[in-house]
Amino acid sequence: MERFMQAALEEARHGLDEGGIPIGAVLVHRGVIIGRGRNRRVQLGSAVLHGEMDALENAGRHPAEVYRESTLYTTLSPCPMCSGAILLYGIPRVVVGENCTFLGEEALLRERGVDVQVLQDPECIALMEAFIAASPELWHEDIGE
Amino acid sequence: MERFMQAALEEARHGLDEGGIPIGAVLVHRGVIIGRGRNRRVQLGSAVLHGEMDALENAGRHPAEVYRESTLYTTLSPCPMCSGAILLYGIPRVVVGENCTFLGEEALLRERGVDVQVLQDPECIALMEAFIAASPELWHEDIGE
Repeated sequence: MERFMQAALEEARHGLDEGGIPIGAVLVHRGVIIGRGRNRRVQLGSAVLHGEMDALENAGRHPAEVYRESTLYTTLSPCPMCSGAILLYGIPRVVVGENCTFLGEEALLRERGVDVQVLQDPECIALMEAFIAASPELWHEDIGE
Repeated sequence: MERFMQAALEEARHGLDEGGIPIGAVLVHRGVIIGRGRNRRVQLGSAVLHGEMDALENAGRHPAEVYRESTLYTTLSPCPMCSGAILLYGIPRVVVGENCTFLGEEALLRERGVDVQVLQDPECIALMEAFIAASPELWHEDIGE
């Protein structure tokens, strides 16, 4: 597995170890990870810190140029909120671990010119399948269902 | 001014007093404010806590039914990230203080069935106009420009 998706997957597994929802992400600027994150709903009682949002938050404040030279790696297809954050900051490229267990706003992202690559990685799929089977209510809460 | 927009405007002014970006929001469920928030970019070094996001975060974790019976009041037209959060949680109604100084994703929200009402409130407009004139770089950072 490519090292940046590996880092996102490590974040997801770290989240699972904490009792959280196993979705992770990293923001990469010119080949360097500038923000790592994982879903924090359980850990922080957060309604907004999905994996991608947590990576953006942990990256800190940056001028627009930084985002426009960055790629976001996320273990799962980005939901409307995370896709909106990608559009807000003009992140041009998103690499998605899988969209088998949840399909986010990939069509909207592509329509707005974002390069979205989906890996359908077996480890990412297996992690989410096991989590959803074990904690369906928590999962539904996280995606507003 | 309607009391919920007044509460959002109070949050925006509180943010300005803290040296922050003056945008505020409140999430209202069945006539009761369950979350108040304001843009926290400056105060917390946050890249994700726009006013609407901060209100959602401060409201805490809720099941989908709560969001689906709620209205979000925000002093400024919601950006792509905040609009995405509205879509994620299925918030059916958004009341916007003004969209003269910034036009967010109102068209996308309406296309997805959200009832978006824009007040064009003179106090909300004056607050943002003065802020943008005084701090254009900070404002551009906040909207990814």
